[in-house]
Amino acid sequence: MRLEILPVPGIGDVTEGDDLAALIATAAPWLRDGDVLVVTSKIVSKAEGRLVDVPADGPERLAARDEVLATETARVVATRGATRIVQTHHGFVMASAGIDASNVGKTRLVLLPTDPDASARALRAALRERYELDVAVIISDTMGRPWRNGLTDVALGVAGMSALRDHRGEIDPYGNELQLTQMAVVDELAGAGELIKGKCDQVPVAVVRGYLAATRTDDGGGAATLIRDAAMDLFSLGTAEAKAAGLREAATLTDGPGATPADPAAVARAIAAVAEVVAPGTAFTHVTDDEVRAGLVASVPGWPEQATGLLLGAAPTPIDRADLVRFGTDVQRLRTALAAEGVPSALLPPPAGSTASACLAL
Amino acid sequence: MRLEILPVPGIGDVTEGDDLAALIATAAPWLRDGDVLVVTSKIVSKAEGRLVDVPADGPERLAARDEVLATETARVVATRGATRIVQTHHGFVMASAGIDASNVGKTRLVLLPTDPDASARALRAALRERYELDVAVIISDTMGRPWRNGLTDVALGVAGMSALRDHRGEIDPYGNELQLTQMAVVDELAGAGELIKGKCDQVPVAVVRGYLAATRTDDGGGAATLIRDAAMDLFSLGTAEAKAAGLREAATLTDGPGATPADPAAVARAIAAVAEVVAPGTAFTHVTDDEVRAGLVASVPGWPEQATGLLLGAAPTPIDRADLVRFGTDVQRLRTALAAEGVPSALLPPPAGSTASACLAL
Repeated sequence: MRLEILPVPGIGDVTEGDDLAALIATAAPWLRDGDVLVVTSKIVSKAEGRLVDVPADGPERLAARDEVLATETARVVATRGATRIVQTHHGFVMASAGIDASNVGKTRLVLLPTDPDASARALRAALRERYELDVAVIISDTMGRPWRNGLTDVALGVAGMSALRDHRGEIDPYGNELQLTQMAVVDELAGAGELIKGKCDQVPVAVVRGYLAATRTDDGGGAATLIRDAAMDLFSLGTAEAKAAGLREAATLTDGPGATPADPAAVARAIAAVAEVVAPGTAFTHVTDDEVRAGLVASVPGWPEQATGLLLGAAPTPIDRADLVRFGTDVQRLRTALAAEGVPSALLPPPAGSTASACLAL
Repeated sequence: MRLEILPVPGIGDVTEGDDLAALIATAAPWLRDGDVLVVTSKIVSKAEGRLVDVPADGPERLAARDEVLATETARVVATRGATRIVQTHHGFVMASAGIDASNVGKTRLVLLPTDPDASARALRAALRERYELDVAVIISDTMGRPWRNGLTDVALGVAGMSALRDHRGEIDPYGNELQLTQMAVVDELAGAGELIKGKCDQVPVAVVRGYLAATRTDDGGGAATLIRDAAMDLFSLGTAEAKAAGLREAATLTDGPGATPADPAAVARAIAAVAEVVAPGTAFTHVTDDEVRAGLVASVPGWPEQATGLLLGAAPTPIDRADLVRFGTDVQRLRTALAAEGVPSALLPPPAGSTASACLAL
C-alpha cells in the first residue's frame, strides 16, 4: 500500500458562478474512483459568491472589515492586540473567522463557505453525476492552533468518507485495548494536500490517491463531527478572557452556602491565600468542632438550614466605621478565595455574644 | 511534482539498545536521498530505553502512573476528571505528557524521547554515515487539540529540514503580500505519514518521497521552533484554571490606584455589573467633575498622589455594625468589577463632611 499526492494545476482564477466540477474534471482528466480531492475553501467560496466588497485601504477598510468579522462571529474566544480568535457560526474556532484578503482583489474579502459539508457533497455529487467519477471531497482551509507555532491545513467540509477513523476497541499486539484513538484523518489528508499545494503556485486542488479502498455514501456527519462543543472543551475561552470572567464572577459572587460540608483543607488554603492582604489584626477562624458550632449557630439570625459550616471573622479592635468597611472588604476577599477553592459561602451577622464581627455560613 | 507516501513494514518489535538506523535501512533498502522518514516516537523511546516499570493493574498502577506523570510534567495546563493536559519539560502541551501504555507490555509505560530533535539528528547522522543515505527525519507522535475532535500526528523532532515553511513576504497574483503564513510542514508531513501507518498494522515508519529537493544540514532549530512560549499563547491555561486564577486574583487584589485616568465608561460598566448584587440602598458614584473632586480629595486622609479618580460609596442608612461589614463586602465587589475592567483602585476613608461611607481612589 502506498499513497500518492498529486497536484491539479491549470484551474486558473475562479469567479462567482463557476462550475467547480467542470473546472476540476477538465484540469484533471486522470482522476479515478476512490481518489480524495482536497479543495482549497477559497475557490469554493469564490464559486459560491461568498465575497464582500470593502474599501482598498485606510480606516474605512478596517471599519468595514470589523463589520464583516462581527457578522461572521458567533462568539469571541480570545483577543490580543489586533488578533481576534472567534468561533464562527459553523462552530470553527479561527483567527478572524477565516476571512481572507489574499488571492483576491484588493477591494474584496473572501468569507468561508456557508456550509462546507454541503459544498463538499454538492461537488462530489456533480462529479459523480456528470463525470461518472466516484471521489471523496475535502474542503480545506489553513488554521493556527494553540501551543504550536505555524499553521496547518485542516478540513472544513467532507463528503464521500468519514471525517474520523476510529481505532477504539482495537487490540494492540500486547493485548492492550486502544483508548481514545479517533484519528481526524480528514485533517491529516487536508494537511497532506497542502504539502503539494503550498509548493506549487496557484494549485487550489490536490488529489490523494490510494487512501480509500472505496468512497462511502454515508459521510457519518461530515467535518461537522470534528467540531467540539464549547461546553466540552477545556479551552473554550482565552486565558485572559477566562481570568476576566473569574474576576467578574468574583464581583457578583452568589450569596449562599454549599450543599455539602466544606473540605477543611480547602478552607485553610483560602484563609492562607488572603492572610497577606487583609488588615493587620483581622483574623478568620473555621469552626470545625460540631458542638461549639451548634451553640454558635443557634444564635445567628437567619442561619440557612442547608449550611454545613461556620467561619468567623474578627476585625481588629478598637474599630471605627472606616475600619468596619475595610474589614468587610477583607471578608469579601476571603469569600472570593473560598470560591476559588470551590467553597460557596453566605455572609451573616456574627453570633450573639461572640467577639466576631462577621460570620460566613459554608 | 507529486509526493509518494510509502510504509516501511517489517521493522518488528523494538527494544532498548536496538539500532534504529540498521532496522530501518534493512527494512527499506529502497530508501533514497531526499526522502523524509516519519518515525513514530514510540520506537525511538523504546530504543532509547525511555520505559518505566509499573504494576499491571489496580490502584498501585494508578499511583505509579501519577508519579511518572508528575516527573514528566513541567506545569499543569488543564484538568477535568481523569484528564490531565500538561506541558512537558520539552514544552509540548499534551494529554498525560505523552505517556503511553499501548504497544508495550502491561507492566511498562513509554515516555517521550528526552530530546526528540537530538534523536532525529542522531538517526539522520547514522543513516548518512553508515548507509550513505541523505534523508530528513521526523519523530512523530499523536496529539489532541482544542476545539476539534479527533487526534492527529505531529512532529516532536526533526532533522535535515526546517520545521516551518515561510511564505511571509511572498506576493499573491493580486499583488497582496501574504501575511502570517508560516506553515508547520513537519506537522503536515507527520500527519501524512500517519495516514499510511494507521492503515497498516505495526508500521512505525513511513516515507514521504518527492517533498524535498534536497535535505538541509541547517535544521533551523528543529521541531523545538514549533513550541510557542506560554507567555505568547492566548490559551496557556485551561478555561476553568484561568477562571480560578481570576478568582484568586480578585481575592488578593492589589490596593493601589491607577497611573492613568480611568475610562468613565469602564467605571460605569463596573458599577452596573454589581448593581444587582449589592445591598438595597448601597450606591456608588464616580465623581467626574474636576472641581468637586479637588475639594473632596483635599479632605481624604492619605489620598495617594498618583490617583486620578474618585469614587464614593454610600451605605444605606441607618446602618449598624453588621451593615457596615456588608457594605464593605459590596465595596470589594465593586473593586473586583473595576479590576475586571482593568481599573485599579485603593480603598480609603470617606471625605470629611461627605455622606459617603467609603472612597475609592482610581
